[in-house]
Amino acid sequence: MICYKLTIAYEGTNYSGWQYQFNASTIQQHIQEALARLLRKEFISIVGSGRTDAGVHAKAQIAHFRHPELVDLNILLLSLNGILPKDIKVLKVEVVPLHFHARYSAIGKEYHYHIYTNRVMDPFRRQYCWHMYRCLDLDLLKEAANLFVGTHDFTSFANESHKGASAKNPVRTIYRLDVIVENDAIRLEFEGNGFLYKMVRNIVGTLIDVASHKKPITFIQTLFEAKDRSLACRAAPAKGLFMQRVIYPDLLTASPSSTLSRLN
Amino acid sequence: MICYKLTIAYEGTNYSGWQYQFNASTIQQHIQEALARLLRKEFISIVGSGRTDAGVHAKAQIAHFRHPELVDLNILLLSLNGILPKDIKVLKVEVVPLHFHARYSAIGKEYHYHIYTNRVMDPFRRQYCWHMYRCLDLDLLKEAANLFVGTHDFTSFANESHKGASAKNPVRTIYRLDVIVENDAIRLEFEGNGFLYKMVRNIVGTLIDVASHKKPITFIQTLFEAKDRSLACRAAPAKGLFMQRVIYPDLLTASPSSTLSRLN
Repeated sequence: MICYKLTIAYEGTNYSGWQYQFNASTIQQHIQEALARLLRKEFISIVGSGRTDAGVHAKAQIAHFRHPELVDLNILLLSLNGILPKDIKVLKVEVVPLHFHARYSAIGKEYHYHIYTNRVMDPFRRQYCWHMYRCLDLDLLKEAANLFVGTHDFTSFANESHKGASAKNPVRTIYRLDVIVENDAIRLEFEGNGFLYKMVRNIVGTLIDVASHKKPITFIQTLFEAKDRSLACRAAPAKGLFMQRVIYPDLLTASPSSTLSRLN
Repeated sequence: MICYKLTIAYEGTNYSGWQYQFNASTIQQHIQEALARLLRKEFISIVGSGRTDAGVHAKAQIAHFRHPELVDLNILLLSLNGILPKDIKVLKVEVVPLHFHARYSAIGKEYHYHIYTNRVMDPFRRQYCWHMYRCLDLDLLKEAANLFVGTHDFTSFANESHKGASAKNPVRTIYRLDVIVENDAIRLEFEGNGFLYKMVRNIVGTLIDVASHKKPITFIQTLFEAKDRSLACRAAPAKGLFMQRVIYPDLLTASPSSTLSRLN
């Protein structure tokens, strides 16, 4: 058995998110169908590092699948991209140790959230930014962002998943939440050991409410203590969110890809 | 009578180009209809600085129109963008001297052409780049680009327009043709006193044929001398082209916009 790691970029605009769903067009489904066709299998199941919701984008989502045969990685890469829609592309195919798991092996993730503040939206960013008309206090935004860095119970910032499940352990560590301002754009860069369902978008919604003086900055501490999602602010829209990077321990991704046979 | 200058950004993907056409969705038509609605006129005609073809984008196309009344520019800007589709936005509305003409007053233009060279296309750039699989010699590309700078008869690089007309004077001056390489992307920046129909895309097609060793660099001089479009290389695809800037004499665009009344 061989374990294959895929690095995938997609524009989420036209999909019902990453996760396979009956009767919906999802990214996982398109990749599974392309792989099954190329590897001549009835069905191939891939495991993603995590879900992204409808409209959320990925610069480098990671997934893995297992297959009994060695295939030529170059041919697999080019064939996959020949079949996949133009808004989903596999950037890399690697062979990784058999115990690699896209979700459980991940030790960190990076998400970027994009906001556009000019009153006239840039037509080239309309699918990739939250268009924010409200006047924002950038110093306050940076101060508020800092309050999220560190280890916290993020219950107030986590939605229940579609199946009604919430995470068993709502404690996560955010290593970095940088606020980068460039002309009319604000980019919020999140790096952490993991993120609960809708956590990034919920934090962004709260940050914007604080930066636009709709909520006092002390409200963030109140939310941490309350551990109650119903108190928190509205989530920021999906289209501003990018899954930027999934982080794995170095050893796990060292790939023995030099000795591969051709695609069967 | 007041002369209004519009600065317009659009993604050309979903339109049959700038120019009004019967039975086609064009950018000029959408803006004219929005203006007519807001200014309560049967019809308003706007004049663009030049046409862009189907699929070509603009970061700052310029157009003008004349209207008997002074209107509040802020209200006009916001109302226009409220009506226009999301892939067409008016970035600026200004009052300019009555003799301003978007096309005839222009003294220069800047176009950018984008090429993407990684064998896997970036899904976020799929509408904005020419995906180039061929291996390119970048030194040769720069050398060839330099041959276009200066004043030349560009007959071999100009298509006839849709009406079968060709420009009376095919001589143009290119001030600057810079080749900028960033990771997997190449940007060709053209600045000149004017460009003939399809001239930028025809030049890019020829440059790529030279840089990929399909044609010798001496072929460019041959084309200049032949003055025959049928000899030249295939035009580069529309989607990589951006109208970046239209240049006017400073005095012409000094605007008396401070004394304006409200939108009628």
